[in-house]
Amino acid sequence: MKVARFATEGEDPRYGIVDGEEVVVLRSDPIFAGFDTTGERVALADVRLLAPVIPRSKVVCVGLNYAEHRNDMANVDAPDTPLIFLKPNTAVVGPGDPIQIPPVEGRITHEGELVMVVGRIAKQVKAENWADYVFGYTIGNDVSARDQMFADGQWARAKGYDTFAPIGPWIETELDPTNLEIQTYVDGEPRRHGNTKDLLHKLPELIEYISDVWTLLPGDIIMTGTPSGLGGFVDGQVVDIDIEGIGRLSNPARNRDG
Amino acid sequence: MKVARFATEGEDPRYGIVDGEEVVVLRSDPIFAGFDTTGERVALADVRLLAPVIPRSKVVCVGLNYAEHRNDMANVDAPDTPLIFLKPNTAVVGPGDPIQIPPVEGRITHEGELVMVVGRIAKQVKAENWADYVFGYTIGNDVSARDQMFADGQWARAKGYDTFAPIGPWIETELDPTNLEIQTYVDGEPRRHGNTKDLLHKLPELIEYISDVWTLLPGDIIMTGTPSGLGGFVDGQVVDIDIEGIGRLSNPARNRDG
Repeated sequence: MKVARFATEGEDPRYGIVDGEEVVVLRSDPIFAGFDTTGERVALADVRLLAPVIPRSKVVCVGLNYAEHRNDMANVDAPDTPLIFLKPNTAVVGPGDPIQIPPVEGRITHEGELVMVVGRIAKQVKAENWADYVFGYTIGNDVSARDQMFADGQWARAKGYDTFAPIGPWIETELDPTNLEIQTYVDGEPRRHGNTKDLLHKLPELIEYISDVWTLLPGDIIMTGTPSGLGGFVDGQVVDIDIEGIGRLSNPARNRDG
Repeated sequence: MKVARFATEGEDPRYGIVDGEEVVVLRSDPIFAGFDTTGERVALADVRLLAPVIPRSKVVCVGLNYAEHRNDMANVDAPDTPLIFLKPNTAVVGPGDPIQIPPVEGRITHEGELVMVVGRIAKQVKAENWADYVFGYTIGNDVSARDQMFADGQWARAKGYDTFAPIGPWIETELDPTNLEIQTYVDGEPRRHGNTKDLLHKLPELIEYISDVWTLLPGDIIMTGTPSGLGGFVDGQVVDIDIEGIGRLSNPARNRDG
């Protein structure tokens, strides 16, 4: 199922299941309340899709998780264990929302990534039980102010600006994540490309590793890392990320101040 | 006022104002709902104090913010701007809660710090308006797995483990934060010591700098950095942090696994 969070004119955000060209409306957030429907259906064309989840606690990111991308990052030591870091939940925006570029030195880069959405409290989970803790998958863009990452050393600022974690367009709950094409475009031109089969640290290992450090809460998300093809974008361009079996996440970019 | 979050046997957490040996019970979280009282008073000795706030969004930390502490960190470049990073809200625990030491290499260190609690949505706030956005102050311990910080490069894991952000015992809403003694003890022996007058980046600058990067939400906290006197602690020890005008935050340490 494709689980969406959406708004219609003048109403609070609601949740629904995308069924072809319609959305079957749910009573509440299905991560917490299951899939009770209200009986109402609305046309997909009449709603505005929102970030499918706003994490209560954590936007976990995994660095250097595709071998080819490590070559883009020659000045960062690649550890044998996953390199994990955090974005704040205030960075999360949804499909179509502008990525707001702050006035910083250097390039703003896109990183198209498969995103796991956590469905249950996960603490010291064993890799073999990983799937019990996944609600579904969406697409994410780990936007980064690249020069600032290296200037600061710590990445929280350069990767954490408001709007630097677009996710969506919905959460696919039935998906085999092991062999999915990921393709990023800027203004329609192909950029980063990869396949989840090339993840260095696979999803079961990530769940075990991360949940040993941080208790994961329902609605937390894990951005699993970006394939190679480093590239930037500027004010006025549009970044699209396609992941096989999920769909397309599309966000325009614009300068934040003025 | 000293604003506490507390529990009594078998009840959900509540909020109150500490008045001598009693707690004046509030109807709801005063950060969001103001100071309406229920009329009830309970004895301070009969309640268990909890973390006075669980941030909905961010635990912001500031690195290298006292000149003397920079000497402890000679292998980290000290930037002219504040070095900011994040802990997850799952690291937050309250007074008396155990700091759970995971099975990692090297020392676990304490960092006693003045903590600002954000009272209003803060986005691109000017330094001169900083005080409008502060709800109050509490004490925090920026617990760190020190060897792991340097092994990872990114600090999110080494400083983000569950229980690695004790705060409390309450939020003091009326306090001049510019000249406060901070003293840490381990098993009663004096360790780190400093005074907030020696902060390199003062609170107005921190609010301006941080709110330009991340929108701060009510209940977010800013741990303002630790003075010098690096030191570790182990299973069975107790870490106390005193800050003038607030009180004492005390947490025992114990090994997490077995």
